[in-house]
Amino acid sequence: MSKTADYTVPGLGKANGEEIAGLLQDRLHALNDLQLVLKHVHWNVVGPNFIAVHEMLDPQTAQVREFADEIAERIATLGTAPSGLSGELVSERRWEDYPLHKASVEDHLAELDKVYTGVIEDHRQVLGKVGDTDPVTEDLLIGQTKELELFQWFIRSHGEKLTA
Amino acid sequence: MSKTADYTVPGLGKANGEEIAGLLQDRLHALNDLQLVLKHVHWNVVGPNFIAVHEMLDPQTAQVREFADEIAERIATLGTAPSGLSGELVSERRWEDYPLHKASVEDHLAELDKVYTGVIEDHRQVLGKVGDTDPVTEDLLIGQTKELELFQWFIRSHGEKLTA
Amino acid sequence: MSKTADYTVPGLGKANGEEIAGLLQDRLHALNDLQLVLKHVHWNVVGPNFIAVHEMLDPQTAQVREFADEIAERIATLGTAPSGLSGELVSERRWEDYPLHKASVEDHLAELDKVYTGVIEDHRQVLGKVGDTDPVTEDLLIGQTKELELFQWFIRSHGEKLTA
Amino acid sequence: MSKTADYTVPGLGKANGEEIAGLLQDRLHALNDLQLVLKHVHWNVVGPNFIAVHEMLDPQTAQVREFADEIAERIATLGTAPSGLSGELVSERRWEDYPLHKASVEDHLAELDKVYTGVIEDHRQVLGKVGDTDPVTEDLLIGQTKELELFQWFIRSHGEKLTA
Amino acid sequence: MSKTADYTVPGLGKANGEEIAGLLQDRLHALNDLQLVLKHVHWNVVGPNFIAVHEMLDPQTAQVREFADEIAERIATLGTAPSGLSGELVSERRWEDYPLHKASVEDHLAELDKVYTGVIEDHRQVLGKVGDTDPVTEDLLIGQTKELELFQWFIRSHGEKLTA
Amino acid sequence: MSKTADYTVPGLGKANGEEIAGLLQDRLHALNDLQLVLKHVHWNVVGPNFIAVHEMLDPQTAQVREFADEIAERIATLGTAPSGLSGELVSERRWEDYPLHKASVEDHLAELDKVYTGVIEDHRQVLGKVGDTDPVTEDLLIGQTKELELFQWFIRSHGEKLTA
Amino acid sequence: MSKTADYTVPGLGKANGEEIAGLLQDRLHALNDLQLVLKHVHWNVVGPNFIAVHEMLDPQTAQVREFADEIAERIATLGTAPSGLSGELVSERRWEDYPLHKASVEDHLAELDKVYTGVIEDHRQVLGKVGDTDPVTEDLLIGQTKELELFQWFIRSHGEKLTA
Amino acid sequence: MSKTADYTVPGLGKANGEEIAGLLQDRLHALNDLQLVLKHVHWNVVGPNFIAVHEMLDPQTAQVREFADEIAERIATLGTAPSGLSGELVSERRWEDYPLHKASVEDHLAELDKVYTGVIEDHRQVLGKVGDTDPVTEDLLIGQTKELELFQWFIRSHGEKLTA
Amino acid sequence: MSKTADYTVPGLGKANGEEIAGLLQDRLHALNDLQLVLKHVHWNVVGPNFIAVHEMLDPQTAQVREFADEIAERIATLGTAPSGLSGELVSERRWEDYPLHKASVEDHLAELDKVYTGVIEDHRQVLGKVGDTDPVTEDLLIGQTKELELFQWFIRSHGEKLTA
Amino acid sequence: MSKTADYTVPGLGKANGEEIAGLLQDRLHALNDLQLVLKHVHWNVVGPNFIAVHEMLDPQTAQVREFADEIAERIATLGTAPSGLSGELVSERRWEDYPLHKASVEDHLAELDKVYTGVIEDHRQVLGKVGDTDPVTEDLLIGQTKELELFQWFIRSHGEKLTA
Amino acid sequence: MSKTADYTVPGLGKANGEEIAGLLQDRLHALNDLQLVLKHVHWNVVGPNFIAVHEMLDPQTAQVREFADEIAERIATLGTAPSGLSGELVSERRWEDYPLHKASVEDHLAELDKVYTGVIEDHRQVLGKVGDTDPVTEDLLIGQTKELELFQWFIRSHGEKLTA
Amino acid sequence: MSKTADYTVPGLGKANGEEIAGLLQDRLHALNDLQLVLKHVHWNVVGPNFIAVHEMLDPQTAQVREFADEIAERIATLGTAPSGLSGELVSERRWEDYPLHKASVEDHLAELDKVYTGVIEDHRQVLGKVGDTDPVTEDLLIGQTKELELFQWFIRSHGEKLTA
Repeated sequence: MSKTADYTVPGLGKANGEEIAGLLQDRLHALNDLQLVLKHVHWNVVGPNFIAVHEMLDPQTAQVREFADEIAERIATLGTAPSGLSGELVSERRWEDYPLHKASVEDHLAELDKVYTGVIEDHRQVLGKVGDTDPVTEDLLIGQTKELELFQWFIRSHGEKLTA
Repeated sequence: MSKTADYTVPGLGKANGEEIAGLLQDRLHALNDLQLVLKHVHWNVVGPNFIAVHEMLDPQTAQVREFADEIAERIATLGTAPSGLSGELVSERRWEDYPLHKASVEDHLAELDKVYTGVIEDHRQVLGKVGDTDPVTEDLLIGQTKELELFQWFIRSHGEKLTA
Repeated sequence: MSKTADYTVPGLGKANGEEIAGLLQDRLHALNDLQLVLKHVHWNVVGPNFIAVHEMLDPQTAQVREFADEIAERIATLGTAPSGLSGELVSERRWEDYPLHKASVEDHLAELDKVYTGVIEDHRQVLGKVGDTDPVTEDLLIGQTKELELFQWFIRSHGEKLTA
Repeated sequence: MSKTADYTVPGLGKANGEEIAGLLQDRLHALNDLQLVLKHVHWNVVGPNFIAVHEMLDPQTAQVREFADEIAERIATLGTAPSGLSGELVSERRWEDYPLHKASVEDHLAELDKVYTGVIEDHRQVLGKVGDTDPVTEDLLIGQTKELELFQWFIRSHGEKLTA
Repeated sequence: MSKTADYTVPGLGKANGEEIAGLLQDRLHALNDLQLVLKHVHWNVVGPNFIAVHEMLDPQTAQVREFADEIAERIATLGTAPSGLSGELVSERRWEDYPLHKASVEDHLAELDKVYTGVIEDHRQVLGKVGDTDPVTEDLLIGQTKELELFQWFIRSHGEKLTA
Repeated sequence: MSKTADYTVPGLGKANGEEIAGLLQDRLHALNDLQLVLKHVHWNVVGPNFIAVHEMLDPQTAQVREFADEIAERIATLGTAPSGLSGELVSERRWEDYPLHKASVEDHLAELDKVYTGVIEDHRQVLGKVGDTDPVTEDLLIGQTKELELFQWFIRSHGEKLTA
Repeated sequence: MSKTADYTVPGLGKANGEEIAGLLQDRLHALNDLQLVLKHVHWNVVGPNFIAVHEMLDPQTAQVREFADEIAERIATLGTAPSGLSGELVSERRWEDYPLHKASVEDHLAELDKVYTGVIEDHRQVLGKVGDTDPVTEDLLIGQTKELELFQWFIRSHGEKLTA
Repeated sequence: MSKTADYTVPGLGKANGEEIAGLLQDRLHALNDLQLVLKHVHWNVVGPNFIAVHEMLDPQTAQVREFADEIAERIATLGTAPSGLSGELVSERRWEDYPLHKASVEDHLAELDKVYTGVIEDHRQVLGKVGDTDPVTEDLLIGQTKELELFQWFIRSHGEKLTA
Repeated sequence: MSKTADYTVPGLGKANGEEIAGLLQDRLHALNDLQLVLKHVHWNVVGPNFIAVHEMLDPQTAQVREFADEIAERIATLGTAPSGLSGELVSERRWEDYPLHKASVEDHLAELDKVYTGVIEDHRQVLGKVGDTDPVTEDLLIGQTKELELFQWFIRSHGEKLTA
Repeated sequence: MSKTADYTVPGLGKANGEEIAGLLQDRLHALNDLQLVLKHVHWNVVGPNFIAVHEMLDPQTAQVREFADEIAERIATLGTAPSGLSGELVSERRWEDYPLHKASVEDHLAELDKVYTGVIEDHRQVLGKVGDTDPVTEDLLIGQTKELELFQWFIRSHGEKLTA
Repeated sequence: MSKTADYTVPGLGKANGEEIAGLLQDRLHALNDLQLVLKHVHWNVVGPNFIAVHEMLDPQTAQVREFADEIAERIATLGTAPSGLSGELVSERRWEDYPLHKASVEDHLAELDKVYTGVIEDHRQVLGKVGDTDPVTEDLLIGQTKELELFQWFIRSHGEKLTA
Repeated sequence: MSKTADYTVPGLGKANGEEIAGLLQDRLHALNDLQLVLKHVHWNVVGPNFIAVHEMLDPQTAQVREFADEIAERIATLGTAPSGLSGELVSERRWEDYPLHKASVEDHLAELDKVYTGVIEDHRQVLGKVGDTDPVTEDLLIGQTKELELFQWFIRSHGEKLTA
């Protein structure tokens, strides 16, 4: 069964639609993985700041799930069938599983910082590529990046070392 | 009575303001017509999927009405008097009345698909023209186009033919 | 394609149903035009009382839109296909476009007063005609008239001249 | 124990109060039966449109239950004891049990259409009888009929056959 | 200063408007007095059922205040200046002050029952008079009477004597 | 038309599913009758405690209606068509109609106490039978019994005689 | 029937309780009259600022009604039966009826300013008298005075004349 | 471990802070006991007015719990560690356990009246002592006393004997 | 005055009802003490994690108060008078007062962990005893235990030591 | 780093805790996969019933995500570190990726039906195993199974074939 | 242009009004500065407790902004024009800018503690001065001081050193 | 202490991050000043349109405060410490204090118009500079400019002079 429809959004061209959808599929895998990792940390973090960090991660999870939904429906709108399947996610992704299980707040936040860096860098790359052909997709990715960078700032602020 | 004010938004220039407002007046007519058409279909659709499609169109109507309000207040902000009158809409529009009255879900969705294609293509054209002089208007149109393309995907998904 | 169904509401008679629906179609055009006019004034009014009048018109618009929906679904319930299209509105209506664009609060309210007088007089005429055959439609129109007369009182109160 | 109080509403007359209450008792049975039937269909409908129709029936059930409550409290206000008992409902009603159990959407909606026709015709008959003596009861029945006719239109719209 | 405007509602005639407004002014006094009495009883009732009756009266007060507002704005809509002043209320009313201060639940409910009878009888009289000329005012009074009769039933149900 | 589907819930066995559904059909009749009785008492209770008891019964009615819905959808989930029809309720039930119409709070609460005793005893019997084969149905019935016993306590507390 | 109970609040003394209640009864009449006047102005104000002033008065009315309720329940708590009756209000008050009916915004606000001055001056006098014996009543009156003075500021701000 | 901090609120003086905190600790025990007693009566009251009194006590419990929280946080703010422990409550309190278990509405309300008298008298004593040094604590206690006296009035109103 | 009613829940037997109620009375004391302890810690905890732990305890307190209410009403439903009195709590409990006043987050959480262990062990014991005779009480206790264990996990997660 | 804590829930035994946590880890993978699949279908379903089925899946997704959270926090409460990672999910699961991408409503619902059968059968197996040692986990799984079976019924009802 | 009106609140005297307003202007500057400082800390705090403290400051900011509004409208009510301008704030204030930018939680909370001490001491001084002439302003300041002292306690609790 | 972190957002470069943050600091001062000015006008405006303009400014204040928060957190996200202090605002800003205190609506709106022009021109300049290096910051500024221009249109509409 074909994974693409016989349409894309008006005024874009079928080839452009497929190419952008392909770039977004990678972003969908990243966000689907991120929502799983955020919940995983939510369950496995321990230490004196447990409850505050445990609670901080839930609105991040909720927002990232909405971003995955937004990306996937954009792929479909562009005429391609999005994949939200775990098997395809794992075989197609360009990164490893998150490395920690139960660990301290500091260790988890240090790892999450790296995860966010990866997701944000890739979002910025894709939005730079699609802006000329599809400003709608560009705008969608800019909006997501803004929130992801804010979330990363929350995480970074916990571990920042001040220099006198 | 003059239809333009002695101001436009700071930093834009009066001539630019009037030109952009003129492009937006056409978009206002399109959105005002679209909200009327969506309600018209809401009342006239029949068939086995009646209730689901009848209900799907109400949030689309509400959103399109907000878009019309947003465009009209942008025109006014740019210093020009927007027209929301039916007579001017009909005499100035570049398209015909929606062709169906009571009809099946399939027929109405096929017609609505065409209506959305027209509105979206024109939105994309205008946002391409105004970006250099007024990134605020461009951003407003990109945001609307994003939603309109999503609504069109809802409509297209009902009638999509799958190829093996 | 026929514009009437093979049914009307139980206990009314097909001919009665069609006749009442015909009277209501005119009321639907009037309310659809009124909602467009109210928004048009909302955008084009200026002067020292701008914000209060600008805000007063939004709940009126919302209510009139609900009335249009109520009338149109009544027409459909009676077995006839309602028309909510702008082209048919303009060609079938018995009145002209609203005459003002950007204008002062006083001028707009004076014109809106006339618009309301027209809509209310016609509502009263139709409810007088349908009462004997269909008390349900009569009650619906009485309820709308009650609100429309209240809205007109709001508008009239701004400009009332007191005599000593 | 007497089923009537020593009062009725002011200005009506005890005999009128009892007569109207008697007419309303039949309407109460009809609405109590209708709320049971709507839930019964909600549970027993199957087919490709299952979820949309299943969900459409819940607000109808809720509304009909409020109507039954309104009628019963009107009977009591008129000075008579209303009966909401299943045994009395079944022995006093003038119609049979609803004929289907598990069945397709089409078959259930066709049967529900008939049920609504019966309830509405009887509501219209009673409101015609009580108008001269008690405009309050008349108005209550007109309001209910308006909603019941709208619900019936929802149901009819699923199965309407269009003629070219 | 004249107490009437130079307008009334469209299609009614200035004399009719004034006459109906005059009938409604008496209803406004009655409802304004009733809201004061309901609060007065709310504060002065004592006995084993205190809290339940104390709380039952608050939604009645709130509803009656809305009715007074509705009547007064109808008078104004008809072109006459309504009076909501206590001095005019007392000098123009056709009934005495409520007779009790601190008293038992039974005594207060027995008195309130009489008050409701008076208000309802007068409402029914006025709605009978205005129906031919102004169905809108008639409908407004029918709606109020329906609620007032229900409130009276609440009150009567506390003291009803059952006959075996 | 067959009243059972070709499935039951996974891991249960078709015969078990049908047997449990049969036991639940009796519980559905009991709850449907109970919601009717609770409303009937709501309308017919009189006396000094009227308003408090009148209001106490509404959340009980709402809860019992949800329980009926929960049971009926469980029957359907188990693969059998539930019956929510009044005729079948009356012909299949093992109890008589509720015996009172208009009566005092004390008399109604004494009768309702008996009704609750019957419903609860039967619920307990059925949950004892189904626990080994279907812990899901058992849990559903335990949850309902918990609330029904609490409601009965409310009713019993009104009439409890204290012994010194 | 005695207008005072055999109790007052703990720690105050029966004579003190009655004296304070007497002072509060006058405040109750003032607030009851004020809520009637505020609604009266709400209905009778006209002119270019109609809608803004019309709407400004509703939250003031709601607040003043709550203050009346608070005062009356305080009187009852102190052991005296409060009077909320219109006849007693008019015969016991020390001021005249509000002098205007339909009038301009300016004229009504000028009169309301005087009404507020009277109510506030009396509130301040009473709170000065009761502070030594009953700080609870004093605090209640201070809280009300704070809001009443704020409302008066709203009214005064409309008509303030600026001196260069 | 010291029960006092090295601070108190600015401008008060450490000795004053400790003294006031000591007076408030007694009030905290009283309110903690009162919330337990109110729930205890909520569970153990029986008789014809059961449901109304049962429900009346819940908002009183909720309010008293907030008062306890407010007092305890005030103690901590003043620099002293508050005690909310049951053992310390019982050993330090100056009153006995509430004397009733299951009992009639009348008996419970008569006992609760005494409990409220005790709590209110002590609140009034403490607020009289602290006013000169700490108007903030005084104001907090006045606010609580106002509500507690209102609650007591609710309770007293059930049993008040009227003298002709 | 007898502490038991002449009834228990249908189908259980009076002796069983009393025995289960007796076991639940101990659970009621435990939960009443726990709600007091949680608030006590809420007020007395200090240190760098103050605000997060201070806030974490409030939903736990609210939930435990609902559990106490649920247990007490179950005791009453079973026919026995529950005791919610502090004096009886302290004299009948099998544990000491909570040992800390103002202390660090770590110390308080370590103590709270022990308190939760005690409450949960006893809940598990009682639910094991009542399951055969009363599955309703068993289910109620299982539901509470589930939440209590989750709360304990929150507390334990703050202090967990990780082993490499 | 050890994946288990030095505790489990009170009264259970460390070995039992670990064993149950192990069984639950499999359920966590199943629910995490199910939430991904439900969203995947939400995006890829097409055909005449698109919008109704598209919308039906969102509350199922939300509920399944809560179930995963509930299971994972139960594992942690039992003393073991849960894994919510996609890589571990895919390498440890006992089933394949969902087989469809873009497909018709019928095809997707037929596949989802199989997925639900698998999840429910496994849930029932695990709840059967843990009941003797941990009734809390058993109850949690019964509650989830109840909802999952209801969701499966929704899906099955779309495709049920009726036999005459 | 004069900064004072020709009125002050009734019963106070113009000179008193101006003097109190002058004292309040200093409090307005303090609160306006405090809301800016709280946001500044919200943005600049770092360290392991980042998120909990970051979130704790937002409701404090919101409350302080409402206090500033309350003070400013009180100044205006007293007849003087309040200044909310940053330039006047800085030139008229009696304290320096807050000394930190990015810093640890401990350092920021230690500084904020000092800021609160200053604001509270000044509030207490002013409320002591105005009580005799204007109890309304006194009460307003007492209410604000109560909340400000509670906020300071939150802040102090983070850094409290316990002495054994 | 350094005012910059050792990071900026991924993919941007530390120098770019610092430069953009510097441009945004000026925008933060402008928005912080604007929120103070809007409240200042809210308190100091007088004249016939007082209440409407007084109320219009509150949602503008709330929005501008959110914009300041958004800008400040963006600066922090970029790795620089934002300054929200009044002293730094006044010494670093490039404009004077707002010139009016108590003044008429017309005068204040004319001054606010100028303030908005300044803020918007500077926003547009900065967004033009940052677009190439950081589309996220650009998008944030475009979104704010859109709202600020709309607010300015509200203000301008009050004073617009119409030319025939």
